[in-house]
Amino acid sequence: MTHDLKAERAGLGRRLDVRRGTVDMTHGSGGRASAQLIGELFAKHLTNEWLAQGHDGAVMPPIVKPVAVSCDAHVVKPLFFPGGDIGRLAVTGTVNDVAMCGAKPLWLSAAFILEEGFPLADLEKIVISMAETAKEAGVAIVTGDTKVVEKGHGDGVYIATTGIGERLTDHLVSGKAARPGDVVLVSGSIGDHGMTVMSLREGMTFGTTLVSDCAPLGRMVEAIVAAAPNVHVLRDPTRGGLGTTLNEIAAESEVGILLHEAAIPVKDEVRAACEFLGLDPLFSACEGRLICIVPADEADAALAAMKADPHGAGAAKVGEVRSEGPGFVEMETLMGGRRMVDWLTGEQLPRIC
Amino acid sequence: MTHDLKAERAGLGRRLDVRRGTVDMTHGSGGRASAQLIGELFAKHLTNEWLAQGHDGAVMPPIVKPVAVSCDAHVVKPLFFPGGDIGRLAVTGTVNDVAMCGAKPLWLSAAFILEEGFPLADLEKIVISMAETAKEAGVAIVTGDTKVVEKGHGDGVYIATTGIGERLTDHLVSGKAARPGDVVLVSGSIGDHGMTVMSLREGMTFGTTLVSDCAPLGRMVEAIVAAAPNVHVLRDPTRGGLGTTLNEIAAESEVGILLHEAAIPVKDEVRAACEFLGLDPLFSACEGRLICIVPADEADAALAAMKADPHGAGAAKVGEVRSEGPGFVEMETLMGGRRMVDWLTGEQLPRIC
Repeated sequence: MTHDLKAERAGLGRRLDVRRGTVDMTHGSGGRASAQLIGELFAKHLTNEWLAQGHDGAVMPPIVKPVAVSCDAHVVKPLFFPGGDIGRLAVTGTVNDVAMCGAKPLWLSAAFILEEGFPLADLEKIVISMAETAKEAGVAIVTGDTKVVEKGHGDGVYIATTGIGERLTDHLVSGKAARPGDVVLVSGSIGDHGMTVMSLREGMTFGTTLVSDCAPLGRMVEAIVAAAPNVHVLRDPTRGGLGTTLNEIAAESEVGILLHEAAIPVKDEVRAACEFLGLDPLFSACEGRLICIVPADEADAALAAMKADPHGAGAAKVGEVRSEGPGFVEMETLMGGRRMVDWLTGEQLPRIC
Repeated sequence: MTHDLKAERAGLGRRLDVRRGTVDMTHGSGGRASAQLIGELFAKHLTNEWLAQGHDGAVMPPIVKPVAVSCDAHVVKPLFFPGGDIGRLAVTGTVNDVAMCGAKPLWLSAAFILEEGFPLADLEKIVISMAETAKEAGVAIVTGDTKVVEKGHGDGVYIATTGIGERLTDHLVSGKAARPGDVVLVSGSIGDHGMTVMSLREGMTFGTTLVSDCAPLGRMVEAIVAAAPNVHVLRDPTRGGLGTTLNEIAAESEVGILLHEAAIPVKDEVRAACEFLGLDPLFSACEGRLICIVPADEADAALAAMKADPHGAGAAKVGEVRSEGPGFVEMETLMGGRRMVDWLTGEQLPRIC
C-alpha cells in the first residue's frame, strides 16, 4: 500500500491510537500526521485499486455511456442513528442521486471536514460503515480529502460525496419528463429516516422502533430500467419528503399530480411520531426510497421490479399524473375529500441528512 | 431556467434579498427557501446546460479516455484574501488535482456547508468568484448541493468540490513514476498562498504586498504534456508545500531527490513573512504552482511550455532525481552545504485551503 509506505517513510514510529485517540489539527495539515490518518484509517478500510494509486486524484477507465454526476454534503445530527450513520448516509445519498438519473453508480469521492477532538474510534466506525455501504452499493470510493477545523467549529464530522455513474437508459430520465396518464409509484413506506432522526433529537423514548430506511438503490434502478425501459422520472424523496419532491416534479414537468392518501405506505410508528411532533409524513425525508413515474402500460412491470428488490418490498402505486392543475399536487384524502399538497414551507426537518 | 420555474411555482413572491439577507436554516431544508437560494443565487451565476437540467444529478456526454477524479474540502480562514477567496480556491484546488493526473479537467461538483447567519452578499461574491474561475479554467460546475448548519457551527462557508477530467497521456502520470536522472521543475515562486493567508491571520501589517498564487493549471498541464509527452510526475505543492510534496514523491517512487536552494524561486516578501513568523517557505503552500518531474531530455521543452503559460513565468529547474538515498530529499544550500529536507512535522499552516 502506497499510504503505508508514505507513513513509514514519514518516520511515524507509533501507530495511530484509534481506540483512545482524537482528531487534532495536524491531521489536516498535509504532513506526517495526515499521511498516517489516511494510511491507517481511511485507506485501511476503503481499500481498492484506484485509491491505492495514492495520488491526489484517481485515474479510472473510460465511461463510454453518458456520464451521470451528483454530489451531496452531509451534516446529519446525530451522527449515529438506528439503521445507519453519517457514513452510510454519505454513500447512499449520493449513490441514489446518481441512480435517479437512470444511471448505474460506479465511483465515489469523499471529502471529510473533521472537528478537532473528534474520537478516532467514532471516525473509524463511520469509515467502516462507508466501506460496507459502498460494497453493498457496488461502488468504489476512489479518492478523498480530509480537513480539520478547530474544536467548536464543525460537529464532529461533515462528509461531502460526489458520485459518478453511467446512464442505463437511451433517453434522459428527468423531473421534466412526467406526462399526463403516467402512474406514480413509491418503493416503500415514507418518512422513516426523517422521523428516526427527529425522534432521536427530540429525545422521544416511548418505545417506538423507528429505523431509518437509508439504503442504496442503484440495483433497484437497474431492475426498473430493465422492466420499464420508458420510465420517465426517478427521484428520491429526501429533504422535503414525498410532498415537496412531487411538487418539484409537477413544476418541472408542468403537469398535475393526484395522490391517493390511502395508497401511500406510512408505518404506524412513523405516523405516531409525526403526530407527537406535529409533523406530516408527506414532508418527512426518506433515504432509501424512490419515486418512479412511468407510462401506465409499464407500471405493473416497474412495480414488480421494485417489489423484487430487497429495499422495495413495500412498493405501491400512489397516484397519477394528469393535465389538470399543472404545477400542483392534489391528494384524495382518507376521508374521501381532496386537498392541495403544498411545498414544504420553512424549516420542518433541519439537518436530517 | 428550471430553477427559476421551481422558485416561481414554489410561490415565492419576494425575491431573495442578496444585499442585506443572511443564510437561515430554511435554506438547507429542501423546501421553498432552498429552491429560491438555488435559483436566485447559485444557478444565476453558475449557469450552464448541465446545471440547468435541474435534477439532483447531471447527465453529461461519455468520456472515452481514462477518467481522472479528485476531490477537496475547503475550509480556508479567512474566506477572502489578496489574490482569491474560498470560491476561487475551491475551483482551482480541485481542477489542479485533476490536472496533476495528466488530465484535462472537464466538470466540477460543488457542495456547500453554510452557517446560519452568513451574509448572502458574501455568498454571492464567492459564487461569482467560482463562476469566473471555472470559466478561466475551462470547466463547468455541473451539479451542487447546499446544507445549512446552526450559527456557531461551521465558519461561514465550507466548500467541497470534486473534479472530473479525461487523461491526456497514454501512460499514468504519478508520484510513483520519478526515475533517477529525471529533472525537477517548479512552475513559479513557492509559498505565496500559504504566507498570504498566514500573514492575514497573524494581522501582519508591515506593508508587504503578499498575494496568493491561487490559479487553475489545467492549460499549463496540457502544454507540458504536448511538449514533454513522457512527463513522469505532476503534483501541486499545496498543504505541506514543496518540501512535503517532494518527500511524498521520493517515498512513492523510492528515489532520492537533490534540490538546489539557489534555484528555488521565493519572493522577497514571502521570505520576509516566513522569517517574521518563523516558518520555512519550503513548507508553505502554493495553490497555483506545480512540480513537474521529467526525463532529462524533455526538461527544456517542459520548462519552455511552463514559461509560456500566464501562470508559469517564474518556472525554474530546481533539482534532480537520483538513486542515492531513496525516500529522502536533500538540499544543496546557499552556503554550499547539504541538509536533509524532512517532512512537515505537526501543524505549520492550519486551514490554508
